[in-house]
Amino acid sequence: MLVRTRNPLNIGAAARAMSNFGALDLHLVTPYEKAFREAVSAVGAAPLLANAKEFNSVEEAVGDCSLVIGATAIGNRELQHELYPLDEAGKKIRKKLAGGRVAILFGSEKTGLSNRDLSHCHWLLRIPTRAEHRSMNLAQSVAIVVYELSRGGSDAMPGAKNKLSSAAADMETLNRINEALREALDLSGYIHRRSAANAEEKLRRMLLRFDLRAADAEVLLGMLRKILWKLKSD
Amino acid sequence: MLVRTRNPLNIGAAARAMSNFGALDLHLVTPYEKAFREAVSAVGAAPLLANAKEFNSVEEAVGDCSLVIGATAIGNRELQHELYPLDEAGKKIRKKLAGGRVAILFGSEKTGLSNRDLSHCHWLLRIPTRAEHRSMNLAQSVAIVVYELSRGGSDAMPGAKNKLSSAAADMETLNRINEALREALDLSGYIHRRSAANAEEKLRRMLLRFDLRAADAEVLLGMLRKILWKLKSD
Repeated sequence: MLVRTRNPLNIGAAARAMSNFGALDLHLVTPYEKAFREAVSAVGAAPLLANAKEFNSVEEAVGDCSLVIGATAIGNRELQHELYPLDEAGKKIRKKLAGGRVAILFGSEKTGLSNRDLSHCHWLLRIPTRAEHRSMNLAQSVAIVVYELSRGGSDAMPGAKNKLSSAAADMETLNRINEALREALDLSGYIHRRSAANAEEKLRRMLLRFDLRAADAEVLLGMLRKILWKLKSD
Repeated sequence: MLVRTRNPLNIGAAARAMSNFGALDLHLVTPYEKAFREAVSAVGAAPLLANAKEFNSVEEAVGDCSLVIGATAIGNRELQHELYPLDEAGKKIRKKLAGGRVAILFGSEKTGLSNRDLSHCHWLLRIPTRAEHRSMNLAQSVAIVVYELSRGGSDAMPGAKNKLSSAAADMETLNRINEALREALDLSGYIHRRSAANAEEKLRRMLLRFDLRAADAEVLLGMLRKILWKLKSD
């Protein structure tokens, strides 16, 4: 998933790499340039680009995913998320792909992923570059990540969407839980008005750490709605 | 080593990827465009490009190498050489790098490596793409190969893996959460009297599945108490 990409050539080049390795589902969040579908750097990637989906927010774009990962070039400054080098991240992702969809977020060429983007991520991955030269080309980063994910088998790549009984909760359900919880905390006075936006991000990060299963998420949402209903009715 | 590259942007992009992964020695064989040293796609790769060496033939360019490998997109049609997928090739190359220099040849964007180029190669490597879309971007191929070669290097990933302090929540806190949640659900009518005992067990199992960290557990408990206080006060 490409977030706020500036250069349409990079979209085309990333699409080509994804197509090379069978990661056929490209989501774009508010690209600056809408003409990306004809990107000249996308030799052979026309079918993938034709099927690419555009979204106005990361939240919408990850709605059907049960695992969301941010790709970052930063070292160990970002302490709010666990950070894995790509080879370890690849193992974790391949396991998860058996039970649901996984999104990997790549930020803009200039600024990477924002704190708000990161608040949608379960954890982060880093491609292990030299410390002296960390800034990678966007499409090359995508190429290396999809190459790593394609390691060890054809069934490893996205597309195999057979849900297990212990399938992870999808992001849409988590967002509903987040909303309900935030409203309940609001009504009960836990959240002060001035820190509301901040609270939303913090809650989302916490919910992601819970690593909810789909069934548990539904139960939790039901509970919160009932509590909310009671809070409102009194 | 890039052989007869046509697009100087590709030289710059390949140089950037090499620099990212510490492969600092770029050899160019008769590039079409001599202006590559200022390639705009080469963010951060200026030192590497400044040191790049130009040669008139593959033979000269591989002179000081003890192993020469050709990168190819072809399948198993090329029978004159052994062909290894990149992960196997990477292992063989890393072993050899301890005792001498290794060259990896990348052909031109249009035609790849010629039979004459291949005649200098000990064996070939292939990046395992989908059979339906084998044509890769040149610089992306270089990026993936140098990434693979940097695998398992001790200094490749300095201090990158910083796990969060992730002490698990203790059972006492979990029990308090359980109690608060059960009371809230009771007050809001979620739990029917007759199934109360059953509900407590289910809640506890669910909370254990959340695998809460100590810090998150405290936050959650604080939220629930606030909600509970509000439920009772109305």
